[in-house]
Amino acid sequence: MAFQKPPGTQDFLPAATAKWQFVEGKARELCRSYNYREIRTPMFESTDLFKRGVGETTDIVEKEMYTFTDRGDRSITLRPEGTAGVVRAYVENKLYGEPDVGKLYYIGPMFRYERQQAGRYRQFHQFGVEALGSADPAIDAEVIALGLSFFHSIGLKDVRVEINSVGTPSVRAAFREKLLSFLEPMRETLCKDCQSRMDRNPLRVLDCKTDQKHFTDAPSILDSLDEECSTHFEAVKAYLEAMGIGYSINSRLVRGLDYYTHTAFEYKAEGIGAIDTVGGGGRYNGLVGEIGGPDQPGIGFGIGLERAVMLLESKTNELEGLSRLDVYVVGLGEDAERETVRIVQQLREQGIAADRDYLGRKMKAQMKSADRYEARFTAILGEDELARGEIALKHMESGEQRVVSLDKLADEIKQSISQ
Amino acid sequence: MAFQKPPGTQDFLPAATAKWQFVEGKARELCRSYNYREIRTPMFESTDLFKRGVGETTDIVEKEMYTFTDRGDRSITLRPEGTAGVVRAYVENKLYGEPDVGKLYYIGPMFRYERQQAGRYRQFHQFGVEALGSADPAIDAEVIALGLSFFHSIGLKDVRVEINSVGTPSVRAAFREKLLSFLEPMRETLCKDCQSRMDRNPLRVLDCKTDQKHFTDAPSILDSLDEECSTHFEAVKAYLEAMGIGYSINSRLVRGLDYYTHTAFEYKAEGIGAIDTVGGGGRYNGLVGEIGGPDQPGIGFGIGLERAVMLLESKTNELEGLSRLDVYVVGLGEDAERETVRIVQQLREQGIAADRDYLGRKMKAQMKSADRYEARFTAILGEDELARGEIALKHMESGEQRVVSLDKLADEIKQSISQ
Repeated sequence: MAFQKPPGTQDFLPAATAKWQFVEGKARELCRSYNYREIRTPMFESTDLFKRGVGETTDIVEKEMYTFTDRGDRSITLRPEGTAGVVRAYVENKLYGEPDVGKLYYIGPMFRYERQQAGRYRQFHQFGVEALGSADPAIDAEVIALGLSFFHSIGLKDVRVEINSVGTPSVRAAFREKLLSFLEPMRETLCKDCQSRMDRNPLRVLDCKTDQKHFTDAPSILDSLDEECSTHFEAVKAYLEAMGIGYSINSRLVRGLDYYTHTAFEYKAEGIGAIDTVGGGGRYNGLVGEIGGPDQPGIGFGIGLERAVMLLESKTNELEGLSRLDVYVVGLGEDAERETVRIVQQLREQGIAADRDYLGRKMKAQMKSADRYEARFTAILGEDELARGEIALKHMESGEQRVVSLDKLADEIKQSISQ
Repeated sequence: MAFQKPPGTQDFLPAATAKWQFVEGKARELCRSYNYREIRTPMFESTDLFKRGVGETTDIVEKEMYTFTDRGDRSITLRPEGTAGVVRAYVENKLYGEPDVGKLYYIGPMFRYERQQAGRYRQFHQFGVEALGSADPAIDAEVIALGLSFFHSIGLKDVRVEINSVGTPSVRAAFREKLLSFLEPMRETLCKDCQSRMDRNPLRVLDCKTDQKHFTDAPSILDSLDEECSTHFEAVKAYLEAMGIGYSINSRLVRGLDYYTHTAFEYKAEGIGAIDTVGGGGRYNGLVGEIGGPDQPGIGFGIGLERAVMLLESKTNELEGLSRLDVYVVGLGEDAERETVRIVQQLREQGIAADRDYLGRKMKAQMKSADRYEARFTAILGEDELARGEIALKHMESGEQRVVSLDKLADEIKQSISQ
C-alpha cells in the first residue's frame, strides 16, 4: 500500500528547504532590524474567531476553511490567515496593557481548501507583521517599508508597492453611494462578477480585469476622503518619501472588510507575463475591538512565501554554497574506516559540517558522494596515515592535497573556511 | 465577545519565541555539522498513513488523533508525530533511489488530543531526525550522538542517554514467551496496567513504575539476542565509545511497535524531582516497507521541544542579549521627530536594529522604552543637532555620550557593536 500526501499539499525536500531557510532567515533578520518580535499562535483556533475576524461572508470563511469538530465537541478551524490569531493572542494575553507598541511578526503555515490549480496550495506559508496599538502614520510607513525591504533583501529588486487610502467606514459608505450612482447605468454592460460585486462589495468592481474600459471616469475614493483621512494619507506618503521608499498610488486598491481603515497597500511583482500581487496589507483600526479587545488601532501585512520562493528561484544566486559540506572523510581498510567515525565526530563537535560513508561503498563511490555534497575538502585516511596519526586533506576546488596531523585537522579546515 | 485559544494550545509571545529561536537554531546548526538536511511535510496526512505507520492499536491512533473529513470527503489527520510523514515523503518522492543515505531532519508542530494536564499540550513541537537507507551500526551511533549533542549544545549538560537492543521481530517473539512464563505466576500481584499490558505488549510491563520490586529476576532481552542482533549492538556500543559518547544500558527500554529492530534509546534529564524521558528513538527496519516502499532500513529520534525549552529556562544564561535593540532614536520637537523616521530607516538598511516612538510620548517615557528593549545606544536628536546635521549618541551601559555626524551614525554604532 503506497501513501500520498493530501492533494494541494507539498513535501519540501532538502533542495527546497535550503531556499525556504534562506527566505525565512532574511525575514527574521529584517524583523530584528525593525524591532518586530516573533509571535507563534496555534495552527487552529475556534471557528468563530475566523468568522468574526476574517468576515462571515468572505470566500475564505464561506468556502475554504478546514473546519472540524474535535473530540471535545468544539468547532475548530485550521488557520486560513495569520492576523485573526495574532490579534486574538494580543487581546487574550492583554498585550495592549504593555507600554510599547505591539510590533509582532509570524512565519508559518496557513490552510485553505482552494480549488486545485498551479501555484495554489491548501497548505501555504506566510510571513506577516502586525503593529498593534499605534495610529501614527509613521508606523504605516514602517510596515510598508519592512515588506518591501523583505522582497529586496531576497534579491527581488523589482517588487514595488502600491498604496491607497480606504478611508474610515463612514467615508467608505459615502463613497459607495457615489460609486453605485456611477455604476448603476452601466450595470448590464458589466461582466457577471462585477454585477454580483455591485451588490456585495461595489468597491471591488473597480478591480475587475475585463471591465477596465468602462471605468475611466469612475469616481476615486481619494477625492472622497475627509480631513482626518487625507491628513493621515498625506503623512504616510511624506514619511515614505523621507525614507526613500518608492511607491505608486492606486486609488482602486481595496481591502475587503469593514474594519479596514486608512492605509491599504499591495506588493507587485512582474510575474511570468503578468504583474502579480505578492503580498499586501492595511490598517485595521476596528479589528481589535471586533475581536473583544479595547479600541486599539493596528496595521499589518501578509506575504505568501510560496510565491517569494518561486520568484527567488529565477532571480538570485545568493543561495549557492548555503548547504555545502565542509569535509567528507574516507577511510581505506577496516581499521581506518572505523577510525573515521571518531574523526567525523570530533570535527562535528567543532562545528564543522562533516560526513562519511554509511553504505560500505568503495572509495570511488564515496568521492562521488563528496561531490554531490559539494564538499570543500575530502580527508582520506589510509592504514599508513592511521599508523602515523595523519590524514591526507584534499581541497576539492584547487585539487591541492597535503598530509596533516589528525590533531590539527579541525584547525586546518576551520582556517581555510574562514578565509 | 472575547476569544480564547483552544484548550491545550499555547501562544508563544516574544519573550518565549526568543528561547524557541535559540533552541531551533542550535538544532539546525548541529544538523548542518552532521549533514542532515531539513524536510518539511504537510501538517496533515491521510488518516490511514498514521494507522499504518504509528500502529492501529496504539493510544495515539485509538484516542489522541485530530481526525476529520475534509471538503473532498477524505479522512485526514493532523500529524501526531513526525516519522510517518517523513517516511511517506521518502517513499512517494523516491528518495530511496538516490545514491546517498537519506539524512533528514524536521522541526515543527505535532498534534495529539491528550488529557489536559500540566506540561501536556495538544499542539506540541518536535525536533527529529531520520536516517533512511543504511543498516550500518555507525549511523545508529551517529543518530544517538546527534540527539545528545543537541541537549548539550543548549546547555543541558546532564542529559544522558540509555540504550538497548529490542532485537528483530523473531527475537522479540521468542523473548515475549520467556517473559510471559516469568510473569504469569505473579499476574494477580501486579497492578491493573501491568495485567492489561501482559496481554497487549508484555515487554512494556518491565517499564512499570509501581511493580519494579517484582522484576529483579526478570529475563533480559539482551540475553535473548541472536548473533546478528548482538553483533549490531556491540558495534553500536563500540562506535559510541570511540566517539566519546557516554551511555548506559537499560535492557527494559522498549519501543512499542513491530517494525522496530535493534537499537532503541532514550534521552533522560533530571526533572523537578524525578528523572524524565525528554526524547527517544530507535531503528525501524520494517517501517519503509510497511508504508509501501522498498525494504529499506531506517533509524531516527524525536525530541519534544517544550520540555527542552522548559529545562533551558532553568539552566542557561546563553540567551541574554539575544534580542536586544541596537539603538533607540529620540527626536525632540516636531521637525526632529519627523527626521528620526528617516534616520531609523537608514540604520535598519544597514542591518542595525533600530526603533523610535510611535505613541507621541515624552522623552522620559521614550527612554524607558529604550531600557525595556535593552537598547545598546540611544541617539537623541534636538533641533540644534538637526540644524548642524549631528546627533547625540549615548552608550547606555557606560553612560558615555558624544555628538556624532548623522552621516557617521551607522558606522559608529556598527563599530561599537562588533567590538
